[in-house]
Amino acid sequence: MNITIAIDCMGGDHGPAVTVPAALAFLNAHPDAEAILVGREEELAPLVEGAQAGLKSRLRIHNATQVVGMDEPPASVRAKKDSSMRVALHLVKNGQAQAAVSAGNTGALVMISRFALKTFPGIDRPAICFALPTIKGHTYALDLGGNVDCTPEHLFEFGIMGAMLASALDHNERPTVGLLNVGAEEIKGNELTKRASELLRASSLNYYGYVEGDDIFKGTTDVVVCDGFAGNVALKTSEGLVKMLGTFLRDEIKRGPLSMLMGLVAMPVLRRFKNRANPGRYNGAVLLGLRGGVVLKSHGSADAYAFEQALGRAADAVANNLIQRIRDKMEAMMDMNGENA
Amino acid sequence: MNITIAIDCMGGDHGPAVTVPAALAFLNAHPDAEAILVGREEELAPLVEGAQAGLKSRLRIHNATQVVGMDEPPASVRAKKDSSMRVALHLVKNGQAQAAVSAGNTGALVMISRFALKTFPGIDRPAICFALPTIKGHTYALDLGGNVDCTPEHLFEFGIMGAMLASALDHNERPTVGLLNVGAEEIKGNELTKRASELLRASSLNYYGYVEGDDIFKGTTDVVVCDGFAGNVALKTSEGLVKMLGTFLRDEIKRGPLSMLMGLVAMPVLRRFKNRANPGRYNGAVLLGLRGGVVLKSHGSADAYAFEQALGRAADAVANNLIQRIRDKMEAMMDMNGENA
Repeated sequence: MNITIAIDCMGGDHGPAVTVPAALAFLNAHPDAEAILVGREEELAPLVEGAQAGLKSRLRIHNATQVVGMDEPPASVRAKKDSSMRVALHLVKNGQAQAAVSAGNTGALVMISRFALKTFPGIDRPAICFALPTIKGHTYALDLGGNVDCTPEHLFEFGIMGAMLASALDHNERPTVGLLNVGAEEIKGNELTKRASELLRASSLNYYGYVEGDDIFKGTTDVVVCDGFAGNVALKTSEGLVKMLGTFLRDEIKRGPLSMLMGLVAMPVLRRFKNRANPGRYNGAVLLGLRGGVVLKSHGSADAYAFEQALGRAADAVANNLIQRIRDKMEAMMDMNGENA
Repeated sequence: MNITIAIDCMGGDHGPAVTVPAALAFLNAHPDAEAILVGREEELAPLVEGAQAGLKSRLRIHNATQVVGMDEPPASVRAKKDSSMRVALHLVKNGQAQAAVSAGNTGALVMISRFALKTFPGIDRPAICFALPTIKGHTYALDLGGNVDCTPEHLFEFGIMGAMLASALDHNERPTVGLLNVGAEEIKGNELTKRASELLRASSLNYYGYVEGDDIFKGTTDVVVCDGFAGNVALKTSEGLVKMLGTFLRDEIKRGPLSMLMGLVAMPVLRRFKNRANPGRYNGAVLLGLRGGVVLKSHGSADAYAFEQALGRAADAVANNLIQRIRDKMEAMMDMNGENA
């Protein structure tokens, strides 16, 4: 099967200067993939002109005249019927692509996806889910910024969706689900976490209970559920910390000629470490809960390497039949919950 | 002036096994300091028996028969009139010590401190404030877990307290204050941040506006304000990430004989980097807003090195007349706000 990815080439902090080179690199690395570059044709065409014929034959430009701004309010986004973001999502809706990738405005992407691609029965809003690296492997964390004002029911839905994703991608039939809190004890937390915990505990999910911030990277549970505010803070804080530590390491190496020599000798080790810790390597969050297709959100500030990772994740999700698998898992769970009720 | 620190020796995950050796190391490093070790005398006495006479002469044990559990609910904490935590705080209240340090139950420490040492006029609840390292130096972040359900007014008070602390400790007359959010744009955030932002903007503080998680370690503002839930998540997630990266670095070094040799050569550089990134080095958060004395909260899982850092921070705060300086700054600000009104 050929995989076709619709790319919102205008989104993100850097637009086509990053998204088009990333698309070419992605096509080069995935000989079975095709790409639809969505955006202003006059801006995109010159950027693909010099590409190899083997790549050009697997891409096409789809003109879209409008661009959703990074901080544009919902009402204004809705009025832009020909935005590159909306057009890319509608290419998925119409079956011309199986996945869409955007580095644009998160709130707009969640809103348009929800209308264009619909959510599964019982799921109110799509959640942004990210596979974070852990000491043990990875953990699926959600929501990471799509939904800043959550009800306990939303957190419960995130638990279901996260478990379905872990189950579908990792063949883990009973993934553990943790609820992010400020302490592991039952008395800790705010009203939201207390009520969400009751819902999760009463469900058929493999609910672990509360986890704390440090449990994310410890890999204590397969899935970590939180509201979009806390999740976004955790994710962005982690990015900032990795950058600071990188600066500290460079500072120590540049401290004097001997340190520089030591750093030079250890460069292969440090480079492997850097690659493993590079946040760009983990770029690409799934909009989970959509039934009409795969949508990947790239970091707004992604460089071409990072955006290419997001495109690769979208292709993996399509190749793995992610949507169909989640649908199967959800139906099985609904049946099970029906039996339990 | 002699500085006397009251130490809750029973608090934290490890109790006297960590707190007493830390107290001895602290006294050794601070020849002008004295310590009151608060806790069960029969447990503490054997641990100081072998100490040098020069240290013994500057410490005394104050018997307290009860211990506050790490996950004990408030009602039960209140009933323990002879807990080591409460007794240590009352030694400050009664003027026998200028500061108290505890690695115990955060909620209990905030509650008892508030009753025993009172807050400044206009401050409802003490906040947990931590000087986090940044690329540029440090930033004061608060609240980090004392108050999980906050009103916009609480966030506003945190802004005042954080600015007073930065002003008092760093001689920075107009510290910038940022409000932690999921985006820098005015339309982003939840109801809490939107209303708190209006209050901060209308005040005489040097309000920067919204900051995101990655701004913390970038050092974008001198003070970062958030509710205790988001703050605790950010802090604990950062701790977990530093530990994971340490594991990754060790993994890369241990990958083979050549990598180990490279790691060995670079060891002095890596050790300096490790020391700089070591979360224990930054242990000790101030309970800000109390007018009766200095209270430092150590991480519950602190080892002796980390707990000693918290004791050192308490001594610094006393030596720097922290409470008096914050009082002066607050009075000056109240006057200024009065003039502006």
